[in-house]
Amino acid sequence: MKVIMVGGVVVGPKVSARLRRLNSEAEITIIEKGSLLSYGACGLPLYVANLVPQLDGLMRTSYGVLRDTDFFQSQKDVNVLTQTEAVKIDRAHKKVFVRNVVTGVEETLDYDYLVLATGAKPSVPPIPGVNLGQVFTLHRPQDAQALKEFIKTKKVKHVTVMGSGLIGIETADALAGPRLKVTLCEAESQVLPKLLDGDMAKLVERQMEGQGVDIRLSCRVKALEGDAEGNVCRVQTEQGTIETEAVVIATGVRPEVSLAREAGLMIGSTGAIKVDEHMMTNDPAIYAGGDCAEQLHLVTGEPVYIPLASTANKQGRVIADHMMGISARYAPVEGTSVLQAFDLNIGRTGLGEAEARKRGYNVVTSVSSGLDSTHYYPMHANITIKLIAEQENGRLLGAQVCGVGESVKRLDVLATALKFGANVRDLIDLDLAYAPPFATAIDVLIHAATTLENIRLGVAKAITAEALVSRLQAGEKICLLDVREREEVAANPLSIEGTMVIALGELRERWEEVPKDSLVVTVCGLGIRGYDAACMLERKGADQVVFLQGGLSVGNAYFDQV
Amino acid sequence: MKVIMVGGVVVGPKVSARLRRLNSEAEITIIEKGSLLSYGACGLPLYVANLVPQLDGLMRTSYGVLRDTDFFQSQKDVNVLTQTEAVKIDRAHKKVFVRNVVTGVEETLDYDYLVLATGAKPSVPPIPGVNLGQVFTLHRPQDAQALKEFIKTKKVKHVTVMGSGLIGIETADALAGPRLKVTLCEAESQVLPKLLDGDMAKLVERQMEGQGVDIRLSCRVKALEGDAEGNVCRVQTEQGTIETEAVVIATGVRPEVSLAREAGLMIGSTGAIKVDEHMMTNDPAIYAGGDCAEQLHLVTGEPVYIPLASTANKQGRVIADHMMGISARYAPVEGTSVLQAFDLNIGRTGLGEAEARKRGYNVVTSVSSGLDSTHYYPMHANITIKLIAEQENGRLLGAQVCGVGESVKRLDVLATALKFGANVRDLIDLDLAYAPPFATAIDVLIHAATTLENIRLGVAKAITAEALVSRLQAGEKICLLDVREREEVAANPLSIEGTMVIALGELRERWEEVPKDSLVVTVCGLGIRGYDAACMLERKGADQVVFLQGGLSVGNAYFDQV
Ligand SMILES: Cc1cc2nc3c(=O)[nH]c(=O)nc-3n(C[C@H](O)[C@H](O)[C@H](O)COP(=O)(O)OP(=O)(O)OC[C@H]3O[C@@H](n4cnc5c(N)ncnc54)[C@H](O)[C@@H]3O)c2cc1C
Ligand SMILES: Cc1cc2nc3c(=O)[nH]c(=O)nc-3n(C[C@H](O)[C@H](O)[C@H](O)COP(=O)(O)OP(=O)(O)OC[C@H]3O[C@@H](n4cnc5c(N)ncnc54)[C@H](O)[C@@H]3O)c2cc1C
Ligand SMILES: CC(C)(COP(=O)(O)OP(=O)(O)OC[C@H]1O[C@@H](n2cnc3c(N)ncnc32)[C@H](O)[C@@H]1OP(=O)(O)O)[C@@H](O)C(=O)NCCC(=O)NCCS
Ligand SMILES: CC(C)(COP(=O)(O)OP(=O)(O)OC[C@H]1O[C@@H](n2cnc3c(N)ncnc32)[C@H](O)[C@@H]1OP(=O)(O)O)[C@@H](O)C(=O)NCCC(=O)NCCS
Ligand SMILES: [Ca+2]
Ligand SMILES: [Ca+2]
Repeated sequence: MKVIMVGGVVVGPKVSARLRRLNSEAEITIIEKGSLLSYGACGLPLYVANLVPQLDGLMRTSYGVLRDTDFFQSQKDVNVLTQTEAVKIDRAHKKVFVRNVVTGVEETLDYDYLVLATGAKPSVPPIPGVNLGQVFTLHRPQDAQALKEFIKTKKVKHVTVMGSGLIGIETADALAGPRLKVTLCEAESQVLPKLLDGDMAKLVERQMEGQGVDIRLSCRVKALEGDAEGNVCRVQTEQGTIETEAVVIATGVRPEVSLAREAGLMIGSTGAIKVDEHMMTNDPAIYAGGDCAEQLHLVTGEPVYIPLASTANKQGRVIADHMMGISARYAPVEGTSVLQAFDLNIGRTGLGEAEARKRGYNVVTSVSSGLDSTHYYPMHANITIKLIAEQENGRLLGAQVCGVGESVKRLDVLATALKFGANVRDLIDLDLAYAPPFATAIDVLIHAATTLENIRLGVAKAITAEALVSRLQAGEKICLLDVREREEVAANPLSIEGTMVIALGELRERWEEVPKDSLVVTVCGLGIRGYDAACMLERKGADQVVFLQGGLSVGNAYFDQV
Repeated sequence: MKVIMVGGVVVGPKVSARLRRLNSEAEITIIEKGSLLSYGACGLPLYVANLVPQLDGLMRTSYGVLRDTDFFQSQKDVNVLTQTEAVKIDRAHKKVFVRNVVTGVEETLDYDYLVLATGAKPSVPPIPGVNLGQVFTLHRPQDAQALKEFIKTKKVKHVTVMGSGLIGIETADALAGPRLKVTLCEAESQVLPKLLDGDMAKLVERQMEGQGVDIRLSCRVKALEGDAEGNVCRVQTEQGTIETEAVVIATGVRPEVSLAREAGLMIGSTGAIKVDEHMMTNDPAIYAGGDCAEQLHLVTGEPVYIPLASTANKQGRVIADHMMGISARYAPVEGTSVLQAFDLNIGRTGLGEAEARKRGYNVVTSVSSGLDSTHYYPMHANITIKLIAEQENGRLLGAQVCGVGESVKRLDVLATALKFGANVRDLIDLDLAYAPPFATAIDVLIHAATTLENIRLGVAKAITAEALVSRLQAGEKICLLDVREREEVAANPLSIEGTMVIALGELRERWEEVPKDSLVVTVCGLGIRGYDAACMLERKGADQVVFLQGGLSVGNAYFDQV
């Protein structure tokens, strides 16, 4: 049996390694047009940030061996042809034509199975100037090397990043610092538009601004302009001109499907290769996986293009298994995606609120903040969790997290629950681990779920920071009631005029001071006390009282707009 | 409506707080015989260890307010009678008799609903000497205060801890250090006998020994002996005598059910109060929750006594809801329990292997080690995961974790999957979050699942360290093949005589050197390369080759026995 992989980064190597373990006979060959193999592209921003000092750190095993051609030969019993491009597939005769990109020598290889693992390429917008000098992308190791080298040798002081997706934000974080200023241009009205809803994105935006990034939202770049030497020096945007020393284009990636398309394989609605649940294309001798292939979304059942190394690896294993007759299916995904940037742990799984509403779900959401471990444990920090569910039955649709504290593994729990069709009641029941270093007695994730259930059932009446601010901006008379302790208020006063301050512990005596003729919004640090205060005022007969979801940990990101 | 709670630590306060939010009319009263309320007992070991400097740190909210009688009055609108003991319940007339423990004044209180939240008390073995001076337990704040004060003022150099459950281990960790030596006596043959299987416990034992703890297993304490002043000075055990300056008894807790029993409420087979899914006793006017009540186990469906603050809080919420007619059920538990001690994050959920076998399950297990994040990310560490599943269908029964790295949130994911009846295939499919700071591209939990599936399906042939060592001890001729890199072997050589060393990368050339007449066990650091090497040798025709599960990260805990 002859099996050929086209592409040698994640899917190609993973299929090969697994296949070899299952099969001693197969001739397994990886064709890779580049010279590097099996690298951790996800670590490139860390390399640019110098957290990974050497590029080959991303290509070594944890025990220090470089994953080169020899590694695949000796440790995995797999042949690799690097600097070799697959240029054409003859499906009828099961042949693939390859060309050495250095020597130009061509060759025809027979296959019984072919695996397309051709990945993705940066999607560069069709604007003038993208080919100027000092314009970078961050996709391959060479890109990172060029960018890092340039920054270092030229002592660059200003870089413009185009696009605020995962890679744009990670790049901005890697570059921004006391000696280098970053301007980030994003065409949409928020950062991370594919990852987060606007409210969660706001938390990221404020944090980035706090660390000195100049964020330009709704700011499409129209052109890059060069200097006499042909290097970029200016960015023309819808909002004016930015003088800059370099540009990083991070406006997304597109699947590399030219080989597949020319061979007549089906391309899906997302533009990536269409595959079935075994990662098989419409040709049973050809599989496709990783960044060149589509996946199905668990919640919507529709094809999606969410290119990630996590899913690419899993697909690789399914491909090898299926080829060997082991019953294995690749499950629909939830689009679980995370990043660490600007000291925040950020992520999402499932549908976002905006997406869910667009699809016609009757949505209920909660945004709540809490501590990742007990406040008396020396290490602890806040996180904010947004849950998106169906109003009727509380079925979870998606979740988003953001915070300095441990939020990503909570997201994993939510992704796991989502996979099994959990509703909010199931989340409340989760038997999660508790000891003071790891969580609060009621985990912040369960607090998020009870908060959602309270809102869903009308036990708690809440307002989002977004809604509050837009009503304030519209001139509505609203009484903000800050129920924090005196010391908290003194340290971080609420800047909105007319805010009333009565600590929760005094409210039971002083509730009559609270006005009855306008909406009262109870505000605290995280949302818990605001909720308690709102309940207390309701008990005293107030009928227009809501608490601010997420308290000031979310509200502060909005209040400068009032 | 009059609602009375007996007990003011977790369940009593939680029912009260939730109930008040749901109901403005109810008269809510907490009866607590002690003087402290609503404290974090779970943090007591941190206080002893001085990680929490002041005891009241465990009784303050995250915003700094002491949770005393006044807090409950002003912030929660709940009455508290401290230093007041409930001495008798008259169910027929719905009355509870209380007595002030200081003044002796008695009173009769009417109730519509009564909540028994009487908790647990240390279970002290009936041996001579337990009432001597300098014999401690660690259950209430006063206990911790007395122990900490004693250690500090007396500059104690040796303490004996009896019992190696969660509290025993946490106490040993809190005390042990360069200036204070701890001897730990455990009657069972392993530490944490209710939490972990023997193999996982071994990892904890070795780590504790490495940090200087003198562990005595299968070592029942027969008596404590005192000096002339009536203070303990000697521990008589089945294995001889230990001179000591103090003893901490941590041999478990028993539910406090005397009030319930005298009132004729049903006590379950575990000795705790029997409740239904609404936490209601056999008297519909009386609920019970927390450490005095039974729960059902999700996997076995049987009653269990697993007293934890995490579940106590959840039960409290269910009790309040059910009282108010909100449909809420308390779900069966998985016994998810964790601790941090000796720099390890340790935990379990579901059934252990020994338990599962005893119950007749046809069990398959995997023990595998891996990194909690990418090795090139500056912060990363190992963890070991044990999965327990059914051989036939791969259904997950339980999981155990141990390691310096982040293991507890992986346990949460496993607990979540277990709740939904996941099988190992579901685990492999989990769409978990990946970015280099948080995980490896295939998360260590998914590696654990694929390892289990490989073992279950016979793709991988494995041996546990325990089985290997007992076969070596029995004199069987076994060839250990260490496939690590030269530098790794040099830094941490395998101490077993006759071990063959061929790095994985050389094995393809040198496989003929490996003996064919005996069992070959391939050994690496974590298990991955051993697995790969075993597959390679099998491809070369070897038929007696297995890899060492968990590699040396588990094997090292055993090999000193050979
Ligand atoms: C900066 C950055 C950060 C990232 N961070 C994360 C993260 O945190 N988490 C995460 O899950 N994912 C992340 N990703 C995505 C992840 O790197 C990709 O999902 C993964 O690399 C996909 O692997 P692949 O094998 O499908 O394709 P690729 O990595 O794109 O590899 C495809 C290979 O195929 C070769 N090829 C293409 N066509 C041919 C041909 N005709 N002949 C021969 N060879 C060919 C290409 O040269 C290329 O080497 C990140 C990516 C980048 C760039
Ligand atoms: C050292 C230590 C570490 C722990 N670590 C963890 C951990 O990491 N994770 C975890 O989940 N759990 C942990 N626990 C367990 C947790 O503390 C308990 O599960 C929790 O306190 C149970 O709360 P409860 O309200 O049911 O009972 P308790 O906390 O036992 O409170 C019961 C109260 O009722 C009072 N009372 C009893 N009878 C009467 C009466 N007749 N009249 C009036 N008052 C009465 C008692 O005085 C007591 O104050 C730990 C416990 C200890 C001691
Ligand atoms: C102090 C105590 C009485 C407070 O009870 P409580 O007011 O119900 O507060 P909790 O922290 O338990 O629960 C938070 C409440 O706020 C809600 N909430 C949590 N985070 C929120 C947020 N960010 N925004 C809005 N609401 C939030 C939750 O839904 C919950 O309300 P619900 O039960 O009505 O649904 C109780 O927690 C207690 O006694 N704890 C100390 C003892 C203890 O747990 N020790 C264990 C350690 S050993
Ligand atoms: C190097 C590479 C080819 C190795 O593939 P591999 O040999 O299948 O190794 P993986 O780490 O992927 O998988 C580990 C294997 O060992 C098994 N395993 C994992 N931990 C184990 C343990 N402790 N004990 C025993 N077996 C273990 C797994 O089950 C898996 O085997 P399986 O697929 O046959 O079930 C592939 O991982 C690769 O190219 N990775 C680099 C690229 C990349 O992923 N980049 C992403 C970051 S952007
Ligand atoms: Ca930075
Ligand atoms: Ca210690």
